[in-house]
Amino acid sequence: MLTIEKIKDASKVLSSTVRKTDLIHSPALSDGCEVYIKSENLQVTGSFKVRGASYKIASLSEEEKKKGVIACSAGNHAQGVALAAKKYGIRATICIPEGAPMSKVAATRSYGANVVLVKGVYDDAYAKACQLQKEENLTFVHPFDDEDVIAGQGTIGLEILEQLPDVDAVIVPIGGGGLISGVSYAIKHLKPSCKVYGVQAAGAPSMYNSIHHRAIEELESVSTIADGIAVKKPGELTFDCCTKYVDEIITVTDDEIATAILTLMEKQKMISEGAGATTVAAVLFHKLNLRGKKVVCLVSGGNIDVNILSRVVNKGLAKSGRLLEFTTEVLDKPGQLMRLMNLISDGGANIMSINHDRNNPDTPVGKCIVDFVVETQNQEHADHLLETLRQNGYPVE
Amino acid sequence: MLTIEKIKDASKVLSSTVRKTDLIHSPALSDGCEVYIKSENLQVTGSFKVRGASYKIASLSEEEKKKGVIACSAGNHAQGVALAAKKYGIRATICIPEGAPMSKVAATRSYGANVVLVKGVYDDAYAKACQLQKEENLTFVHPFDDEDVIAGQGTIGLEILEQLPDVDAVIVPIGGGGLISGVSYAIKHLKPSCKVYGVQAAGAPSMYNSIHHRAIEELESVSTIADGIAVKKPGELTFDCCTKYVDEIITVTDDEIATAILTLMEKQKMISEGAGATTVAAVLFHKLNLRGKKVVCLVSGGNIDVNILSRVVNKGLAKSGRLLEFTTEVLDKPGQLMRLMNLISDGGANIMSINHDRNNPDTPVGKCIVDFVVETQNQEHADHLLETLRQNGYPVE
Repeated sequence: MLTIEKIKDASKVLSSTVRKTDLIHSPALSDGCEVYIKSENLQVTGSFKVRGASYKIASLSEEEKKKGVIACSAGNHAQGVALAAKKYGIRATICIPEGAPMSKVAATRSYGANVVLVKGVYDDAYAKACQLQKEENLTFVHPFDDEDVIAGQGTIGLEILEQLPDVDAVIVPIGGGGLISGVSYAIKHLKPSCKVYGVQAAGAPSMYNSIHHRAIEELESVSTIADGIAVKKPGELTFDCCTKYVDEIITVTDDEIATAILTLMEKQKMISEGAGATTVAAVLFHKLNLRGKKVVCLVSGGNIDVNILSRVVNKGLAKSGRLLEFTTEVLDKPGQLMRLMNLISDGGANIMSINHDRNNPDTPVGKCIVDFVVETQNQEHADHLLETLRQNGYPVE
Repeated sequence: MLTIEKIKDASKVLSSTVRKTDLIHSPALSDGCEVYIKSENLQVTGSFKVRGASYKIASLSEEEKKKGVIACSAGNHAQGVALAAKKYGIRATICIPEGAPMSKVAATRSYGANVVLVKGVYDDAYAKACQLQKEENLTFVHPFDDEDVIAGQGTIGLEILEQLPDVDAVIVPIGGGGLISGVSYAIKHLKPSCKVYGVQAAGAPSMYNSIHHRAIEELESVSTIADGIAVKKPGELTFDCCTKYVDEIITVTDDEIATAILTLMEKQKMISEGAGATTVAAVLFHKLNLRGKKVVCLVSGGNIDVNILSRVVNKGLAKSGRLLEFTTEVLDKPGQLMRLMNLISDGGANIMSINHDRNNPDTPVGKCIVDFVVETQNQEHADHLLETLRQNGYPVE
């Protein structure tokens, strides 16, 4: 049974394995409220998952430890279980769907786990894990719907109350619900006046729907850049905890999440994965009534693929007017393109790429279409540059 | 005079203004030694500079405080002085060269400082600051060559010794030398057995040259992506401290710094500016003899322009085989490009851009040149894809 004593016990057990992550005050995010970041992205393995997995493994009987554990995950849970098993010197088998990022497979292997790559998607890997569990009599470490796992995640709640005793609200991402179950249980038992809010991706609102309809619901599909919380169906234990201890659940869009990832990079100098940034998105886009409150955003992990990060950065640059794409026409004569380029560089913009096409059939005879990508300082600068081009006779959209 | 008591006093004075930043163990960077990150990139204002500026301002007489302070900087020092002045309720004027990134100007203004944008480069802004200092009888806050400033930076040394009493070596970036002067003074007075190493950018080796030639030298020009340490001439106090207390100074190249920035992002989930990443570059590229040692890399700041960050990420992706650019030829017939694209996507690569040119005069008649940029999983995957293309008759370099 989940009890506050169990969470306190987890806190003791975990002290040698996990980092007590820093709680960082963020003046830059504090617009009408005081925002603090609980930086689980700086946790070992890059996410909070190692807490629940470690406590689960520590709680096994000697016989169970001897046999080893099995888990199924394409992400943070895999690394959490692998590191925890290594710390306790037990064998871990992790089933990972074949399409998972190579970096995550490599990280899981680096902790010494036996990785089984399974053809297909998550469900196929899960089926394989169940089969191996039975065949080899292993202990299955569930990513969220398990009391020991939930107790492990709950240790974050204890740390927040210790690091900021006068906290008014804690915002927590929800995938399967293990993290918020542990955190809300701890907080509501020790400081009932503190609000606990949950955030889901708008493209994967399984707990949100289930809570609103008062019954566990399964989504047919999920789609979000926050892969860490792209879960189709809440757990039974976690649904129960959310019903009892969570004050409100809201959703954020992928665009809002991307903005939050970029904001965390620029203002807090931190890498967050999509799931982790949802809580900051909730603050940035005023999804909750937090005026005058001391608010903790739990940034749950930082394991984002660098390819995705690169896209988020480029989108963010474009959005804030620091990367400007435009198409214009020049006369198809020597020196004309140079004249245009001079105008752009005199305007203080830095040309990154030019695509010059004189064969497009839509082009008026005697003219060329040119596509530019340029670096600008901000939206104002970008607007000013476009205006200058128009005044010099270059049509730009 | 700089004394250990002064640094201890600074530590008390600063406790209400600056964060005692976390010391984070990094198993991922620990290759043959145990690496810890002193995360001053997570300091308020995004860099350590606020420490020295705050202690300097706190140490002013009431009369000096009434008149206010002036500083000259295009970067972290500007924000440090501005925030420190705000905390003590005094007026700050900051001269910034006109070409400085808008984000830094905005951040400095956001702390309430009076920003004077000066036409020209740093030297022009410096001249303007000297003029205003005389005219208005302000106190000039030097970015590094000042005992109070050095004492403020030295508080990091005290924190490191408290957070990791059995530290064997500390690696510190050097620009003007204020940071390493304070840190090395504190460490050599409290734990003389601990080594203190300095790192400079290969494109701005002013302290490196000066120490090796045993006299202060001024560089004619500096060129590095680590703008925070692009300093032409060491200070007198800082040269003296480096001579007495620093065991060794080494340099790292811009490529090495870029790799370190990317490694900190991927492995530590942290944004570092170029200057901050130099210490990690020193470890990654084995510039020092650290085998078996407990080593602290001081990551001094995180204020990197997102445009530069974006370039570092893209370069890093290309280097690690996750972004592949190649040029090939296809027959100039309908369906031929599609056949090639199918081959690429069947190979598990994600096409990001295609440039298809049939007008290049170098192209053999009946063929087209096509440029591709594709996402791949790693170097092995990229090599495998190129091999597949060659086997299917596509020439690729």
